[in-house]
Amino acid sequence: MPPIPPAIRAVVFDLYGTLYDVHSVAGACDSRYAGRGMDISTLWRQKQLEYTWLRSLMGQYIPFEQATRDALVYTCRHLGLDLDQAACDALCDAYLKLSPYPEVPGALGRLNALGVPLAILSNGSVFSIGEVVRASGLASSFSHLLSVEAVRVFKPDFRVYQLACDTLRLPAAEILFVSSNAWDAAGAWHFGFQVCWLNRDARTFDELGAAPRVIRSLDELPVFAPA
Amino acid sequence: MPPIPPAIRAVVFDLYGTLYDVHSVAGACDSRYAGRGMDISTLWRQKQLEYTWLRSLMGQYIPFEQATRDALVYTCRHLGLDLDQAACDALCDAYLKLSPYPEVPGALGRLNALGVPLAILSNGSVFSIGEVVRASGLASSFSHLLSVEAVRVFKPDFRVYQLACDTLRLPAAEILFVSSNAWDAAGAWHFGFQVCWLNRDARTFDELGAAPRVIRSLDELPVFAPA
Repeated sequence: MPPIPPAIRAVVFDLYGTLYDVHSVAGACDSRYAGRGMDISTLWRQKQLEYTWLRSLMGQYIPFEQATRDALVYTCRHLGLDLDQAACDALCDAYLKLSPYPEVPGALGRLNALGVPLAILSNGSVFSIGEVVRASGLASSFSHLLSVEAVRVFKPDFRVYQLACDTLRLPAAEILFVSSNAWDAAGAWHFGFQVCWLNRDARTFDELGAAPRVIRSLDELPVFAPA
Repeated sequence: MPPIPPAIRAVVFDLYGTLYDVHSVAGACDSRYAGRGMDISTLWRQKQLEYTWLRSLMGQYIPFEQATRDALVYTCRHLGLDLDQAACDALCDAYLKLSPYPEVPGALGRLNALGVPLAILSNGSVFSIGEVVRASGLASSFSHLLSVEAVRVFKPDFRVYQLACDTLRLPAAEILFVSSNAWDAAGAWHFGFQVCWLNRDARTFDELGAAPRVIRSLDELPVFAPA
């Protein structure tokens, strides 16, 4: 029998791609560049992530909004699309109005009813995280909104994950961390959280030496059905 | 007039993708998975890089060969291709026999004739770097083969670039660093090297706040035609 994990005393969520669909910006891209929305959105997201990793490794932290903007500039240059200042501003603003995945409001409500403290731990700035949760009407679900701004480095640097322990005053092993980003789930697993990788789209998990629990929807969170 | 840069007292090259063509493994992939060689090679390389960045950020260093192997396992799982141990070994071995780009031997010979010390600074292990330069007959061109093994973190962490300064006993500003990898050229530029981004294939430079000199071939190195 595997050892029984410690009780879960808080649930910490990634934001981009986990609670909120980053490809909901594809619509905004598509209305400006007809037929190219998903191409833009996919490369934009890939480069946004790369830039957070690379800036962290170089010790050249910039706010997440700047990485997002830089990634969009790269994407449009690479795809040969014109991007003026107004278009850039408008598309970046779409990142402040992301849609939550359909099961998210209900699952957060059930977690709130169980009395488990909920937090967001995100690469986004304090401003961006606040805007996204406010625009979607979910701000009241969370006891803490935690941004990498406090440590000026991006995930999966362990200083980011440590923020959750310090703020919630809990050891990593008593926190359930939930992310749809395989690399984030792997980093959190190595850090020592209990981890669920939320795999809604049958993706392939990355080979990073980590073995989180896999769920297909927030409705499968282990706090809803303890082992 | 821009300030005149200090004289170049050594040239340090990236290996994978700069002196040697990583997509020369596509042939080995193609002979095992007919028609899929370039798909495999492209995703394999992307994931290999991601895994070096992510492992560095997590403080979970593994040798480059292991990142290469992990990336191949991911790639085949993602593309739905069978990969047994023998196939994995054979394909990873192809990374030890990469082809140099056509102008490389001639350019190194000209640099040797100028008496400029040449080094390789690579994510690869001591073993891999040695194998690649030996297999291609270019080992005698270099005064130093420098591996990230010495610092157990990958590029673009500055501890890697510092290895070149420490070994060559030169300040960063007197070293010319050459890489075809935009993120590596950007990291080296932020570190303080003189940098050439070697852009053979008309790629798009990354938006990482760096502005290296751009060349299309090693024959355009500024040491051949000082300003």
